Amino acid sequence: MTVLKNDTFLRALMRQPTEYTPVWMMRQAGRYLPEYRASRKTAGSFLSLCKNADFATEVTIQPLDRYPLLDASILFSDILTVPDAMGLGLYFEEGEGPKFERTLQQEADIQKLTVPDMAKLQYVFDAVSSIRKALGGRVPLIGFSGSPWTLATYMVEGKGGTDFLNTKKMAYARPDLLHHILETTAQTVIQYLNAQIAAGAQAVMIFDSWGGALAHNAYKEFSLNYMQKIVNGLTKTSEGKAVPSIVFTKGGGLWLEAQAEIGADALGLDWAVDIGSARQRVGDKVALQGNLDPAILLSTPAAIEREVASILASYGHGHGHIFNLGHGITQWTDPENAGAMLTAVREHSRQYHQ
Amino acid sequence: MTVLKNDTFLRALMRQPTEYTPVWMMRQAGRYLPEYRASRKTAGSFLSLCKNADFATEVTIQPLDRYPLLDASILFSDILTVPDAMGLGLYFEEGEGPKFERTLQQEADIQKLTVPDMAKLQYVFDAVSSIRKALGGRVPLIGFSGSPWTLATYMVEGKGGTDFLNTKKMAYARPDLLHHILETTAQTVIQYLNAQIAAGAQAVMIFDSWGGALAHNAYKEFSLNYMQKIVNGLTKTSEGKAVPSIVFTKGGGLWLEAQAEIGADALGLDWAVDIGSARQRVGDKVALQGNLDPAILLSTPAAIEREVASILASYGHGHGHIFNLGHGITQWTDPENAGAMLTAVREHSRQYHQ
Repeated sequence: MTVLKNDTFLRALMRQPTEYTPVWMMRQAGRYLPEYRASRKTAGSFLSLCKNADFATEVTIQPLDRYPLLDASILFSDILTVPDAMGLGLYFEEGEGPKFERTLQQEADIQKLTVPDMAKLQYVFDAVSSIRKALGGRVPLIGFSGSPWTLATYMVEGKGGTDFLNTKKMAYARPDLLHHILETTAQTVIQYLNAQIAAGAQAVMIFDSWGGALAHNAYKEFSLNYMQKIVNGLTKTSEGKAVPSIVFTKGGGLWLEAQAEIGADALGLDWAVDIGSARQRVGDKVALQGNLDPAILLSTPAAIEREVASILASYGHGHGHIFNLGHGITQWTDPENAGAMLTAVREHSRQYHQ
Repeated sequence: MTVLKNDTFLRALMRQPTEYTPVWMMRQAGRYLPEYRASRKTAGSFLSLCKNADFATEVTIQPLDRYPLLDASILFSDILTVPDAMGLGLYFEEGEGPKFERTLQQEADIQKLTVPDMAKLQYVFDAVSSIRKALGGRVPLIGFSGSPWTLATYMVEGKGGTDFLNTKKMAYARPDLLHHILETTAQTVIQYLNAQIAAGAQAVMIFDSWGGALAHNAYKEFSLNYMQKIVNGLTKTSEGKAVPSIVFTKGGGLWLEAQAEIGADALGLDWAVDIGSARQRVGDKVALQGNLDPAILLSTPAAIEREVASILASYGHGHGHIFNLGHGITQWTDPENAGAMLTAVREHSRQYHQ
């Protein structure tokens, strides 16, 4: 493997000294970039981008070519590759969110659920290998998965949503069934992330996109516990280096203390949390990643610079902060504004690392 | 006016002693009740229910007739009556959320926005008077409004949503314009709630349904500040009695300390917060209302009882807790399960008030 030229992101995740605050953007390979839209048009669909290593590599590299200030790359893929491999039949209808052909609502279907053969996800591992090669050591590559709870909501509901009533009903009426789904999914995710690490991922992130919809005690029982199992099961070193892990529960700012205890190296934060308060609450247990509201990138370079400076000042002096958005960049973002954010992070952050 | 036979709810809001924990349910007059669905069918539409005092009275009373354990009633109406009166043209399309004919996106349109003549909302005040008469003192009547931020999102976006990108873009790029909308709306809401109080509302609640979508500092600037203005402008006594106020920011559990400072008598809580921790954080500044996940009502009476008992135990001994859901009851709820919740609250709460 080639030598990593910029390991700022990895050092920040381990709370080691860095010269500035590293930065990347969730969904940085995405529809706000004209070059991405062109690749997607050529590929024909979102899933074709994910399932073809050449396309996945092409779009993963695009934001790095445009923005030399990015300190990390992330595998181009989707969290729903896992339930797809578990047999639920993922498909997309134009202009709508992802859907599944089958759902897990009947006890018999749920009891049949098993950890799938990782060969079904080989296209993901091939993409990781291909992207690592294409990166040539420019920045580290992040692998990722959805959290068991988040994946379970899709498997039970058959689609995305905002209230997850069927999944929650199962959580309270038949917790045994939901725990079977979550346990099977957690075991799958461990194998999935470890295979990504074996293929070349240098850090991993668990996206708990819908954990914030749960009641505080249900969050611990149905989401956090399973993320802890995953973190415990992860390969800790690869290529002679630590492979740090990031756990991100969107809407989970009330529960940071509990999140900081599960063994992950870093926590993702959305914009509802003041990052300075978050740092006080978690102490030196974890690094923090976040937390600009992506809507701010729709405003002006001056407003973006002011808000970036405010977050950096709130985190304050010292290491262990990875700048990011609090959620994926929206497709309506002017790429110039994304660039303004990256410049502001670099310019304003050096003072906090002296 | 007739004598109020059950003032448990009002006493709890003022943190005065009560014999048990009072309870009501957000959206208790709603689609989960067959009698409500029958009334709505007769009226022809949701808006016809709101705009006709007889229909509004009928559906407001329905849950009280079914559930003698309810300790409060709430005006049947909609938060969008206010932007409708401000000239935006509210309409509903079957099977979709509320929409507006006009939006506030152009500076010229925004500058023209003014506080409307309250005569446009007379149908709401008529409903309040009519409901008070029909109640005959059984339980208190709650009046309500949306918060300025929440109403502004509908006025700017023209519909409900989950990301509020246009409104947030305005917040960061042209805060002066958004502040004009919010200030005008706050002044309108003050007149609106005071007219409800004059017509007979015995407590008022401000629903900040979308405040939780804001970044922590933007929440204070664009939502909480304006709720504080409203609370300051409210009529404090009517019919010789205090008229308590409740402020509820859905998804705002991180900011309870700030909410407790604005002068409201009580805070609404959603299910993300542990109510015992919330009580510790706000001290004796405010009463707390909440916070069962309405999804739990889709499960079983046994699970409902267990979760109710858990919330009551977390709040612990003493007064100042009003039991409620953390959001409106869902239309898929079995009315028997709602009854099981009310019974559990009454049975399990007496021990904490001795």
